[in-house]
Amino acid sequence: MKASKFYISTLREAPSEAVIASHKLMLRAGITRKLGNGLYTYLPMGVRSLYKLENIIREELEETAGALEFKPTVIVPGDLWKESGRWETMGAQMLKAKNRAEQDMVVSPTAEEAYTAIVRDGLDSYKQLPVNFYQINTKYRDEIRPRYGVMRGREFIMMDGYTMNADDASLDESYNAYEEAYFRIFKRLGLKIIPVKADSGAMGGSGSEEFMVESPIGDDTLIICPNEKCGYAANVEKAECAADESVNKKGEKVPATTLPLEDVATPNVFSIEDMEKFFDESPKMFVKALIYRVINSSLDLSKATGSDKWQQVKDPAGDYYPLSYACVLIRADLDVNEAKLAATLKASEVVLAEADEVLEYAGAPHGFVGPMTAKCPLIVDYSVIKDGEAQMHDAIAGAGKEGFHVKHVEPMRDFVPFINADLRTAKEGDKCACCGGTFYTRKGNELGHIFKLGHKYTKSMHVTFLGQNGKPTEPTMGCYGIGVDRTLASIIETNNDEKGIIWPMSVAPFQVCIVPIKYDGQMKEVADKLYEELKSAGIEVFLDDRNERPGVKFADMELIGIPLRITVGDKNLPNVEFKPRAASEAELVPATEAGAKAVQFVKDELAKLKA
Amino acid sequence: MKASKFYISTLREAPSEAVIASHKLMLRAGITRKLGNGLYTYLPMGVRSLYKLENIIREELEETAGALEFKPTVIVPGDLWKESGRWETMGAQMLKAKNRAEQDMVVSPTAEEAYTAIVRDGLDSYKQLPVNFYQINTKYRDEIRPRYGVMRGREFIMMDGYTMNADDASLDESYNAYEEAYFRIFKRLGLKIIPVKADSGAMGGSGSEEFMVESPIGDDTLIICPNEKCGYAANVEKAECAADESVNKKGEKVPATTLPLEDVATPNVFSIEDMEKFFDESPKMFVKALIYRVINSSLDLSKATGSDKWQQVKDPAGDYYPLSYACVLIRADLDVNEAKLAATLKASEVVLAEADEVLEYAGAPHGFVGPMTAKCPLIVDYSVIKDGEAQMHDAIAGAGKEGFHVKHVEPMRDFVPFINADLRTAKEGDKCACCGGTFYTRKGNELGHIFKLGHKYTKSMHVTFLGQNGKPTEPTMGCYGIGVDRTLASIIETNNDEKGIIWPMSVAPFQVCIVPIKYDGQMKEVADKLYEELKSAGIEVFLDDRNERPGVKFADMELIGIPLRITVGDKNLPNVEFKPRAASEAELVPATEAGAKAVQFVKDELAKLKA
Repeated sequence: MKASKFYISTLREAPSEAVIASHKLMLRAGITRKLGNGLYTYLPMGVRSLYKLENIIREELEETAGALEFKPTVIVPGDLWKESGRWETMGAQMLKAKNRAEQDMVVSPTAEEAYTAIVRDGLDSYKQLPVNFYQINTKYRDEIRPRYGVMRGREFIMMDGYTMNADDASLDESYNAYEEAYFRIFKRLGLKIIPVKADSGAMGGSGSEEFMVESPIGDDTLIICPNEKCGYAANVEKAECAADESVNKKGEKVPATTLPLEDVATPNVFSIEDMEKFFDESPKMFVKALIYRVINSSLDLSKATGSDKWQQVKDPAGDYYPLSYACVLIRADLDVNEAKLAATLKASEVVLAEADEVLEYAGAPHGFVGPMTAKCPLIVDYSVIKDGEAQMHDAIAGAGKEGFHVKHVEPMRDFVPFINADLRTAKEGDKCACCGGTFYTRKGNELGHIFKLGHKYTKSMHVTFLGQNGKPTEPTMGCYGIGVDRTLASIIETNNDEKGIIWPMSVAPFQVCIVPIKYDGQMKEVADKLYEELKSAGIEVFLDDRNERPGVKFADMELIGIPLRITVGDKNLPNVEFKPRAASEAELVPATEAGAKAVQFVKDELAKLKA
Repeated sequence: MKASKFYISTLREAPSEAVIASHKLMLRAGITRKLGNGLYTYLPMGVRSLYKLENIIREELEETAGALEFKPTVIVPGDLWKESGRWETMGAQMLKAKNRAEQDMVVSPTAEEAYTAIVRDGLDSYKQLPVNFYQINTKYRDEIRPRYGVMRGREFIMMDGYTMNADDASLDESYNAYEEAYFRIFKRLGLKIIPVKADSGAMGGSGSEEFMVESPIGDDTLIICPNEKCGYAANVEKAECAADESVNKKGEKVPATTLPLEDVATPNVFSIEDMEKFFDESPKMFVKALIYRVINSSLDLSKATGSDKWQQVKDPAGDYYPLSYACVLIRADLDVNEAKLAATLKASEVVLAEADEVLEYAGAPHGFVGPMTAKCPLIVDYSVIKDGEAQMHDAIAGAGKEGFHVKHVEPMRDFVPFINADLRTAKEGDKCACCGGTFYTRKGNELGHIFKLGHKYTKSMHVTFLGQNGKPTEPTMGCYGIGVDRTLASIIETNNDEKGIIWPMSVAPFQVCIVPIKYDGQMKEVADKLYEELKSAGIEVFLDDRNERPGVKFADMELIGIPLRITVGDKNLPNVEFKPRAASEAELVPATEAGAKAVQFVKDELAKLKA
């Protein structure tokens, strides 16, 4: 391609709204252009990289995961979403429209419903399973605050794959195959991925893994073990860590006490800091007790303290308590991880109780809540009790009456858990439960996700097949996503310098550029010859034949980030300059050898990524 | 690809709602599956053909028309449509939604606005023009009655290209390049295209061409000259034809008369048929006069009869008359083509006048309207007067008073035109103005369209560039579309037999299929060997390794329409059956030669389409 036939649209400065490198560079290099809030157009230079990325995804999904591409519509009937039950739960992020017949339509934010409806339609027998389809298609989510360009846009391109499987073993196979394909995809894109066992969030189901890249603007906080052999990494919502000993302020282990509980008047002591001062002791010696409001718990609470106040609702999908309460106990230097707590309580949500609720379920205001006086079930973190053994001794806790704390608290002697679980938020400096390494944290951005959906959609949308046993059977499902634009932006985010983008060879819009200092005379002749030579060798070559100053052309090619530049200047002829974008220095090469050397360079770079 | 790894989903019967061949076959062969009314999913078999078609379009647009692919969003801000003025005029076919900030959003039915906004953004100088972008992307039009499957769906895929040009000469170049690309595209798809100069319809602007395929379910009526050298074809809305002589009922030419006009009482004569009986004469001897209401004419009517009653509105875009009237004269055996009439009157619309309007402007009711007594300008068809000469003589017309006609009418003597133009509707049997051939008509379906938009969008959306003369200049635009799904359906519509689809090689989902009678023993061995041989020769080969009866496999492969089948049966070994889908008979070929022969077959078929 010659520059004169292409659309180059570079900017010296990015618009001020662009604050992150990839957003700035995509606008400056003419990769994207803004069309509206959260809506970005890919310009021709961007389309080339975008399609290469998409094709790498296609190749690996088809070869490694055995997936077949399908193409549902972007606009789907709202009825499908009503069938699955997500019409309501997706909330305002789903863009809805009414067609001329006043029927509800949805601009797809994801395609579980469409996939399930389509596959259900032709499904008879177990012989047809698994059905492993993916698409790379337009999606829309009405983000409240779209930002960072295509990193968090409203319209975006997503690869979304779905498998329908006869049984769990088959789902495992599909899931593992996608996992492998993902690793290959991100490798080919030159991205260093942190695979993370993630909380499954609002999607429901069990078994999921996120593919993250480190990013200072990441949406997620990752807890990472530095030990490479271990490789533990988890979203902070799910991260576990090794237990650490409870010690007093002198750093000594405290033995169990036989002293009885003793109330202490603590009139102005409300916070943990207040307690530290008043008792002159480390928070590791305090039991923190928090009253939580629990929404839609599907636990059996019939034997729990306080359960006479709560109504269990009978439901074919599983009985549940719309509202209940819990008293959570944890060592006072630690934080409760509410995602873990909700999972432990099989609840859709947990929220710290309001003042009046605290009074009702603790008999005392916040700050004085105590384990011995709570009127709701005790949910106890492993930092307090584990495997039936107290992990703290002679501790201090709230007394359950305003203005009082209590000393000589012995867990297991003075209270026992209704449920004992891991509830703490892991943090930097905590120890890895697998290898003992010291965690560090990073912000991460999710690029991909694989997820075992289970029967969520096949149940609600009534999908069955005739099993090997001749009986109607409900299939299980997996879903698999990659944010395509976000992945492209992440490649730029991690591959750039002050001059611009440094594309990995696999997704560069062009592989090689030829820049004649002046497109005239012998320079033109040599440049044209090289251009033809590279084209016929199958190289994607860009010839900057514009009538611009060399400085302008260099700056543009560097900003756009083409991985190799060959400069043809009359001062150097019969040599030409050979300069990989990532290298600091150019090398002089005879023009007659530059073509072959460039072909080899492209090959080597691609091989490195594919290895 | 092996059948066991693919998704084959064939049906014996198409759902009853499918009435045309392509719709039936796309459902039966597992090309598409319905997701909702007017919403079709492409299944993996369909995606393969769809993408091949898309890539042929890409190749030709890039190579032949120099177009560059861009990718605007599917969802665009309603504000852009308000800017262009189409927010209101697009009507209910445009799907609109409000985002969470209550902003209007549009699911793109077409992308003039998006393109114009995007290109406007970076446009400074004439040096940047032309900007020639296309996309192949999702569109949505809320059809009232979607039908015929993807032939007229609600969501569809469109190739839409746009050029912004510095001047008309540049626009002509772009337009011609797209035209050439279109011919190449449709040739490669094996489609016989009728290029048609079309009325530009609601799009505005001038200069357009439609690319039609003959189809019994076509939306348009085409007037076609059978003379291949001539090749004239036009939409009935625009078709011109040769003048034919006015003759009396004996077939004689009638000389000019010198007799004066003579009123004849015709109390019960209202229609042309009544006149034929009453006067015992051919309608070719009658002048038909019709009063039309004319909306938004931008003609200068200041010197026209009746113009004192009409208000001219001053407008920077051109002064116009919101309402005026015209009396149209045409030979009574012919019909007025209202599209031609509106174009002649530079009007947005023409409508036959109501009874009270007819009375006002003709002085008589419908049936008695006369050329000599009309109180509005005479717009005269070439069948009555041409080049200042009467084409009818001694004619009969309405007398302009109820119950009377008038004889001995001599055009040019008794009345002269305000405007003289071609206004007749051409029809089957009319003669071609170019070559004299006798027209026939066909129903046609529009697959593509090229169109000179002119300044419509650059004016309303305020686009300018700095011209070569240093002055801000308004660019001109062209737009170019191909209905991708509809083209795919048309290929099937014209390439099928009672067994199924007969794909042209260029868009077949697979090029060759290998069907072992039983996938076992020596048959398996030979089939596998051939499969590997063809794969490594770069052939897209499908191996039907299913454990099904041969009849089932044959029927599926024929229904799906793979262009070549190689059957491996133990009765024939060491020969195999070599059967092109379009051939009636199979040929026996040594298995050792079948691979090379298949490669050649694929090559030849592709070459035929590309020639």
